Amino acid sequence: MPRLRLALSQANPLVGDFAGNTEKILAAAHAAWDAGADLLLTGEMAISGYPIEDLAAQPSFLRAARAAVDALPARLVAEGLGDLVVVVGHPDGPFEPRLLGSSNAPTAIAQNCASVIQGGEIRARYAKHHLPNYAVFDEYRTFIPGDELLVVRIKGADVAVIVCEDLWRDGGPVGRVLEADAGLLLVLNASPYERDKDEVRLPLVTRRAVETDTIVAYVNIVGGQDDLVFDGDSVVVDGSGTILARAPQFREHLLLVDVDPAPAGDQVVPVAVQRVTVEARSDEVGPIARDVAELPDDREQLWNALVLGLRDYVQKNGFPSVVLGVSGGIDSSVCAAIAADAIGPANVYGISMPSRYSSEGSVDDAADLAERIGFHYWVEPIGDIVDVIEKQLGLEGVPAENVQARVRGLLWMAESNRNGHLALTNGNKTEVSVGYSTIYGDTAGGFAPIKDVPKTLVWELAKWRNEFAIERGETPPIPENSIQKPPSAELRPDQTDQDTLPPYPLLDAILELYVTRRLGREDIIAEGYDRATVEFVAKLVDRSEWKRRQGAIGPKVSGMAFGRDRRLPITGRTAG
Amino acid sequence: MPRLRLALSQANPLVGDFAGNTEKILAAAHAAWDAGADLLLTGEMAISGYPIEDLAAQPSFLRAARAAVDALPARLVAEGLGDLVVVVGHPDGPFEPRLLGSSNAPTAIAQNCASVIQGGEIRARYAKHHLPNYAVFDEYRTFIPGDELLVVRIKGADVAVIVCEDLWRDGGPVGRVLEADAGLLLVLNASPYERDKDEVRLPLVTRRAVETDTIVAYVNIVGGQDDLVFDGDSVVVDGSGTILARAPQFREHLLLVDVDPAPAGDQVVPVAVQRVTVEARSDEVGPIARDVAELPDDREQLWNALVLGLRDYVQKNGFPSVVLGVSGGIDSSVCAAIAADAIGPANVYGISMPSRYSSEGSVDDAADLAERIGFHYWVEPIGDIVDVIEKQLGLEGVPAENVQARVRGLLWMAESNRNGHLALTNGNKTEVSVGYSTIYGDTAGGFAPIKDVPKTLVWELAKWRNEFAIERGETPPIPENSIQKPPSAELRPDQTDQDTLPPYPLLDAILELYVTRRLGREDIIAEGYDRATVEFVAKLVDRSEWKRRQGAIGPKVSGMAFGRDRRLPITGRTAG
Repeated sequence: MPRLRLALSQANPLVGDFAGNTEKILAAAHAAWDAGADLLLTGEMAISGYPIEDLAAQPSFLRAARAAVDALPARLVAEGLGDLVVVVGHPDGPFEPRLLGSSNAPTAIAQNCASVIQGGEIRARYAKHHLPNYAVFDEYRTFIPGDELLVVRIKGADVAVIVCEDLWRDGGPVGRVLEADAGLLLVLNASPYERDKDEVRLPLVTRRAVETDTIVAYVNIVGGQDDLVFDGDSVVVDGSGTILARAPQFREHLLLVDVDPAPAGDQVVPVAVQRVTVEARSDEVGPIARDVAELPDDREQLWNALVLGLRDYVQKNGFPSVVLGVSGGIDSSVCAAIAADAIGPANVYGISMPSRYSSEGSVDDAADLAERIGFHYWVEPIGDIVDVIEKQLGLEGVPAENVQARVRGLLWMAESNRNGHLALTNGNKTEVSVGYSTIYGDTAGGFAPIKDVPKTLVWELAKWRNEFAIERGETPPIPENSIQKPPSAELRPDQTDQDTLPPYPLLDAILELYVTRRLGREDIIAEGYDRATVEFVAKLVDRSEWKRRQGAIGPKVSGMAFGRDRRLPITGRTAG
Repeated sequence: MPRLRLALSQANPLVGDFAGNTEKILAAAHAAWDAGADLLLTGEMAISGYPIEDLAAQPSFLRAARAAVDALPARLVAEGLGDLVVVVGHPDGPFEPRLLGSSNAPTAIAQNCASVIQGGEIRARYAKHHLPNYAVFDEYRTFIPGDELLVVRIKGADVAVIVCEDLWRDGGPVGRVLEADAGLLLVLNASPYERDKDEVRLPLVTRRAVETDTIVAYVNIVGGQDDLVFDGDSVVVDGSGTILARAPQFREHLLLVDVDPAPAGDQVVPVAVQRVTVEARSDEVGPIARDVAELPDDREQLWNALVLGLRDYVQKNGFPSVVLGVSGGIDSSVCAAIAADAIGPANVYGISMPSRYSSEGSVDDAADLAERIGFHYWVEPIGDIVDVIEKQLGLEGVPAENVQARVRGLLWMAESNRNGHLALTNGNKTEVSVGYSTIYGDTAGGFAPIKDVPKTLVWELAKWRNEFAIERGETPPIPENSIQKPPSAELRPDQTDQDTLPPYPLLDAILELYVTRRLGREDIIAEGYDRATVEFVAKLVDRSEWKRRQGAIGPKVSGMAFGRDRRLPITGRTAG
């Protein structure tokens, strides 16, 4: 049996930062080599970051990516790493456009590739066959599909290379890898986190390993990129379905594992396969420890996703700090706790902005939160400003309530403008779904940490975070009162959310069916929900689309987030 | 020679309004029948409107569309129109999903179809082969491609049916129609307006007609749908390249034309073709007049596109009126004139909101504009409100300038909330490109009429609109002073835009290269532009992406509009 030591580089790239991403690859190559690895495998598009969206249609971007890839073999040699086999993900182009459309159409001119580097040369290149063009993915828009398999012979083993979606499709390259009888399948991925996705992804990897009787080495990138959070969770599974190695979620990690793929045979298979043979290191290497991370509890995973999504948005965009309004309510309390976990409480600025309708309790709860977490906190009453506006315009009712929310937004944006803080907006998914917000008011901000977390789950998260603190002997960050009290926008006397909206458990149940599962009104009513409530909720969702289009981005953590995951018209009748 | 009288229904559908869209088709069928037509041809997706985006992934929506199509044959018979051949565009589904992705992925379950109805039955159905998935189109995301051609024999002529993109692709169905030797090609379209697109679309139709020696009947929908404006401009061209009929742009029209396609032969062609024979009317019909509209001047076309885009957004979404800030500057003046042309000056509400930095001239120019156009106008000074905020927060400099802009946005949003007006935001494409705006301030609003019109073109449009008025003996709407004076945000004393930005002609030239043509910085510098200016502009464009994501929609009128036409990350380095 050939024995190969693999190093899977679960790294956090920055889109377009070719120099920085290259340094990460070189650092991983050094660590891999020092640990005795034969082969280093990076994530999908490790050179460029992922997703690059329409940057893939910009020739200058592709030329820069190509220059970075072309420079890598010599860099590896110069650093004494020439014998290491490096399989690196990158875009390749520009090629002649695939599509013929109207004049300015951004036709696909690139491929999504993996290159095999060894001995100072690029020895082979594989282009992704299956281009996901659903959910958040637009790869058919930006990439030309590949049509040739790649099998690399290393130490007498046949090692196949594919990219991400190629693994997911029945009848795709994986089936043909079986025909080519490779003993090891390397899969480069950029697969974003979703709640419960580990319940889909690991079984898929395992199924592929078992059905092809092949060792599958699956490496995923990690990190936040706009509204996506890549969770890592790279894994190596053998043909019996046993997990040989697994990287922790949500952080960079070099996963080392020894594998014993079946020796290469002499099959001649009727598929287009590019075959190359590369050398591997021949020195003796010592043993390595078994590295199999345990996945934490679902709520901890979700919390970690939200923390990393915010941290990377802040850090990758160069913000020193964040500012947010803290009302004493559950949403802003959870956002403040996420922010403190992401970038430290010293970089978090929270403003309490009471109006004449704010209860004493609210300001107390906000102050309590600030003290528990230790972020910068001050009170900025809005009464005088609101009074001047209401009097000048003669406003009352909902338009006057909107003014309160907009004055608050104006105040934290002023702090953002003055001090360079990123402004956070605290709306949860339930609010965003039904438009229970004032646009340009509470929706103002550059990032929305919990926009994909329904209200009922916000409460659960708050409770979990407090329990997590207690288990570790720390102060629970969220005041119990903020968890227990009835939610209120506090824009008029004695207001609660339930004056306007159905109870949150019912509302979230209907939204799950209407938004996530795309059921029509009648379908939902047929499941036993009250007709009037369903029609009310669906109407609110439909008519809030224009607000959502102007909303801040925030981390996608569900199977159906607002944004590019769900593309619906503003104008029109969507009833059905 | 067989003679067929065609009626092309250039109609304005509303997305999802199956009942209303059906009534439009029936009305067109009546008019067509009364005019002696053999065949009525609708636009692409006439039953559902276009684009339906992810509604195509919602089974209840598809079931409603199918019910509307299935009801049509009997409706036609009931109205005495059973002998008319009706070729109608619609989505069809739900089918089994095409893609296998992660669990909640919105896989394609629909086709983009044209059905042939006659004698109370659906006689045949064609599914679009080529699914545009570039620019603003996501059809590969939402539709399953068809793989069979359709040829309908009517009065001894073979009539082929295709849909939109099928015409554009070399090597697509059009080539195979040539093999099938049809004498007439019917093309159902939903092709949005772009400046200068008539210089691409008509030559394409003509080229296809000539290269296949076939009469091509090309019908396009008309109307605004969110950020798209469909211009109609339906046309019939014969095999010699002669225009037999052409509908006017930007309004509904039933285009009638007599055509004499070559008689059907007996070809047996090696492609999958569904062939049906349908009856046509046998009564004598009188002659019809030649109907060939002239295209107006490019600036008039553009103005009409902006007017229709705004009108349909207002009317299809049920707004009674619009409100906007009028500063006396060129952008707000042009927006007010567009609004008045779209929905009448009686439905336009303009607010002048001077600050301490506003010149007397600005308020005078705004008042002059209001008087010329005749919209509702009043002055709402912002000084008292801004003073309270600045004092409470101790603001100065840019953060204080932003407060002025945000107080203005707050005021027109309050009017919007109080009276149900749609709020307009007046930013032009140049501003939107470089982020020369205050988010939640001047960008506040539901619709941005000129967001795809560069500043230099805004001036041209203003001049054109005034000349157009003068030619017709009307009052020019835009004050000459608003056109002539140096542009200024008037947020500090003696400010002009050119304190901060390069001169607009230079800026727009660089933006054309960087945004529309996707050139990299070095590419632009190589064309002779100053390095520092190019780098400054490109940096402004890159770092404004987060603002654009939160911007209002507005009509796409260029080959590269912001929005779904240009999908770029916020986070990352895009230099190249």
